[in-house]
Amino acid sequence: MSLFRKGLAVLMRIPMKAAATSGQQLATTPPFPPTNDASSSANFFESYPSRKVALTDVKEWMQASIAIPSDKIEFVDANLEQFSKGYLSLPQEGRRELLLVLARDYDVNRARVRELMAQYLNLGFPQEPESITEDEQSRGRVRDEAFLASCYRTERNLRIALKPMYDIFFERLNAYPGGLKILAVLRADLLLVIEKEKLPSLRALDLYLKEKLITWLSPAALHLHQITWDDPASLLEKIVAYEAVHPIRSLQDLRRRLSTGRRCFGYFHSAIPGEPLIFIEVALLKEVAKAIQEVLWDDPPFLENEATCALFYSISSTQPGLSGINLGKFLIKRVIELVRRDMPNITVFATLSPIPGYVQWLLSKLASHLKLGEEESENETDSSEIDFSSTLKEHVLLPEEERMICESGKALADGNSGIEILYNILSSTNSEWSKSDCLLSALKRPLMRLCIRYLLEKKKSGKAVDAVANFHLQNGARIERINWMADTSERGIKQSAGIMVNYVYSLEKIEENAMAYFSTGHINASSNIYQCFQVRNCEIKLFTIFELVYI
Amino acid sequence: MSLFRKGLAVLMRIPMKAAATSGQQLATTPPFPPTNDASSSANFFESYPSRKVALTDVKEWMQASIAIPSDKIEFVDANLEQFSKGYLSLPQEGRRELLLVLARDYDVNRARVRELMAQYLNLGFPQEPESITEDEQSRGRVRDEAFLASCYRTERNLRIALKPMYDIFFERLNAYPGGLKILAVLRADLLLVIEKEKLPSLRALDLYLKEKLITWLSPAALHLHQITWDDPASLLEKIVAYEAVHPIRSLQDLRRRLSTGRRCFGYFHSAIPGEPLIFIEVALLKEVAKAIQEVLWDDPPFLENEATCALFYSISSTQPGLSGINLGKFLIKRVIELVRRDMPNITVFATLSPIPGYVQWLLSKLASHLKLGEEESENETDSSEIDFSSTLKEHVLLPEEERMICESGKALADGNSGIEILYNILSSTNSEWSKSDCLLSALKRPLMRLCIRYLLEKKKSGKAVDAVANFHLQNGARIERINWMADTSERGIKQSAGIMVNYVYSLEKIEENAMAYFSTGHINASSNIYQCFQVRNCEIKLFTIFELVYI
Repeated sequence: MSLFRKGLAVLMRIPMKAAATSGQQLATTPPFPPTNDASSSANFFESYPSRKVALTDVKEWMQASIAIPSDKIEFVDANLEQFSKGYLSLPQEGRRELLLVLARDYDVNRARVRELMAQYLNLGFPQEPESITEDEQSRGRVRDEAFLASCYRTERNLRIALKPMYDIFFERLNAYPGGLKILAVLRADLLLVIEKEKLPSLRALDLYLKEKLITWLSPAALHLHQITWDDPASLLEKIVAYEAVHPIRSLQDLRRRLSTGRRCFGYFHSAIPGEPLIFIEVALLKEVAKAIQEVLWDDPPFLENEATCALFYSISSTQPGLSGINLGKFLIKRVIELVRRDMPNITVFATLSPIPGYVQWLLSKLASHLKLGEEESENETDSSEIDFSSTLKEHVLLPEEERMICESGKALADGNSGIEILYNILSSTNSEWSKSDCLLSALKRPLMRLCIRYLLEKKKSGKAVDAVANFHLQNGARIERINWMADTSERGIKQSAGIMVNYVYSLEKIEENAMAYFSTGHINASSNIYQCFQVRNCEIKLFTIFELVYI
Repeated sequence: MSLFRKGLAVLMRIPMKAAATSGQQLATTPPFPPTNDASSSANFFESYPSRKVALTDVKEWMQASIAIPSDKIEFVDANLEQFSKGYLSLPQEGRRELLLVLARDYDVNRARVRELMAQYLNLGFPQEPESITEDEQSRGRVRDEAFLASCYRTERNLRIALKPMYDIFFERLNAYPGGLKILAVLRADLLLVIEKEKLPSLRALDLYLKEKLITWLSPAALHLHQITWDDPASLLEKIVAYEAVHPIRSLQDLRRRLSTGRRCFGYFHSAIPGEPLIFIEVALLKEVAKAIQEVLWDDPPFLENEATCALFYSISSTQPGLSGINLGKFLIKRVIELVRRDMPNITVFATLSPIPGYVQWLLSKLASHLKLGEEESENETDSSEIDFSSTLKEHVLLPEEERMICESGKALADGNSGIEILYNILSSTNSEWSKSDCLLSALKRPLMRLCIRYLLEKKKSGKAVDAVANFHLQNGARIERINWMADTSERGIKQSAGIMVNYVYSLEKIEENAMAYFSTGHINASSNIYQCFQVRNCEIKLFTIFELVYI
């Protein structure tokens, strides 16, 4: 990454390593420190690894940042600066210990809370309305405002007392230049720790911090900026580092994504200068693309003003610590508004999205089916298992599919049945199958069909289980089409069996769709998708439908 | 103001009316509406007066914005838009009623709070630490996390229950584009109502909103922008409208304040685009100016890089609704940092500031002295009054001053004593005295001397009673010099008897001064000012000192 020092122009000929720091890995070793000055953030690469700080020092700076009274606020900044630098230089174990100290030692003062509660309950609340006579009511009104004044006072004190002591630490960090970034790093670390140890105190800390971040990162406080090739290298290197969907492979690749026929928009917050919190990449096309290869590799062969479709092909959040704070929804809406205003010819807004959970889900289904099959032949199954297995049997492979897989799959994987062969093919470490024409034609039908079932049927708490599907559905998009061999990259084959989805945003339907999804869990999909879903036994029709282009 | 439509360049020859909408008047009739789009805000001038909305409608939009559950958030924005437009079109009385409804009907749900309190107190808190045996302690630790989990849950519910229902209204407005501006207008109106009726419910509403605004407007979330002649007219017209200290009289005046030898910096928030929340005007000079006339009228006769002093001659907050949220302090610090970086020759950072409370204070002191004098001649005074009157007598006029005022003042005002004449001169509706050389020389000494007493001595809750003095002192500045006939404008004479103060910001002393002022109320002033304060009987020395230039 330090190659960037030498200037982007010189480096145009040197291919870059695929973003090693992309995605979730950022949580543990944030590449950028807090700075008072946007321009100096790039210097971090030099200064970061050389510093060594003791955990006890970092704890002391944290404690001082909390303990300094408000009238000595001038000392807080110096401590926060020390803390920020120190915290970033700590290894994961040190951060974990610090977070535990914060969660436990800077918790709510419960003695004070109970004292105020006793005071509040003794304020002399009036009786319940039904038991009050009219005379009492009118007397009540007179003393109303005076009584309310004591309520307000005690309630305010209670609100203050119910804040954990770490509240002031968060507030002060938020006010400190660069502090918001530290808060995001802190929460990312917290989420990593919680994944392993579900301690109530850490979860309470996380919930509290998340709520603070939501109010600070209100969409109205973010500004949209179109990222172009004219932006500083220090910003562009972040796009390279954070692109989580389709890694940027070279400077040519980056340049293409920012040039004619392409757009890149980021949401920025003043407290984190020079770095988007989230960004989206858009291709201007004549029709909705069916494969990511066309978008990433082909140069646009037409003029921008001939485009009729804006395709969102990548959306990446740069801060793992802002997980659960849906900035993407607002970003997509703002970008649609902007593109519509600037390019009235563009009337279709669609995505080309991965299905990151598909293969994993399918493998687990195939595995339970295989296990059930074994058990069935060994002993009697109880009634609940029968239900489960029969549903699965119905769902997994049709007889024709079973036959085709057995015929074509044997070359690549062992197995006594189509299901076993499919399982072995999909779980193998390589993705050889996607290079065999014979296997591709045998697997297309079952994998496409099961993919639709996965998207439409698989839910968790009433929402689509696939994270990307859930994201677009809750934003009010519709599942329009699924595309075979749409992402033939290693990751595309591994995660989504090479399939990608076009979600469509119809502006006039966004609210309606989102509300239906929220209230009833109804998944909006095109009629073609629903037909495929229903006609799973009419094999010929199925093939026909997948060949249709219907956007 | 609509002249701006035709473009600033064309209008260079047309003098503008002095900002009729400047300062506090904005509170009641905010000139700019909330918009989704920064560029359209200027259109408000056309659309604003024509709309008429019923109060009941505005109430309903407000109620709907609060009542819509979070899973139907899509409907909220439409209601907030209606509400924002409707609210701005209401007359003051309608706004007052709406604020009362908000404060009273959307208050804390006290039944729910008491229910949760009972629940909390029944959680089974452990005994106080001193009465716990070691054995109990170790058992306690085991159940600690489980017990804490219930604490966290109930505390979180309590925090939610203790939020007034209007909290969600504020949160939703803050997330809505243009909503932050509406919140500022709402609070400005609230402050106006509270000034007249100190209802506890309204004060609780104000306190709550103020705390929310403080966390949303954290200095790290604001961005500094240097405002220049190249900025859009829609931004520059706001500088004209909001300049509260020295009204901008013409486009030439505006241009001069943004050109060579001058700087103007604003603090902007992404949610209020195209409009600074606060801005500061700076003159680059060779020495600290003694009169505002030099700064406003003279063209800088030297090159910028010859300047050694940055003079802050005006700081204006544009949002009366953000009163009590000290953004100015952070702005001054940021500007000092920026100027030091860009222009290392500049080593002195000073202000030229009015003393807005001086004449008003002096008049009330003179009046009580006159009243006491009358009472003294009529009847015996009790002991407390003796103390008061003797202190005052000692303070007001020295014999030599008394004599000079009697001699010179008679031409302009009646009176039996110097004090009475001074009172009549200063309370007259015109400011004739400032045009008479004779009176100027008679009044200079007492008015300068008393001004120092006012600045150094007059305190309220341990802080300087003058708002501007308190602002700079709490930011860590020092009172360096006071200047006679430094602001000869109508307002300058009326408010400050034409006197202005130079406060100096010495970067290395800012924190120390601010802390001393906070903790002990110590007012930092130059040794010359303190000498004048102490040698009030050595008249000759006094004159000498005031002629010194000591920065």
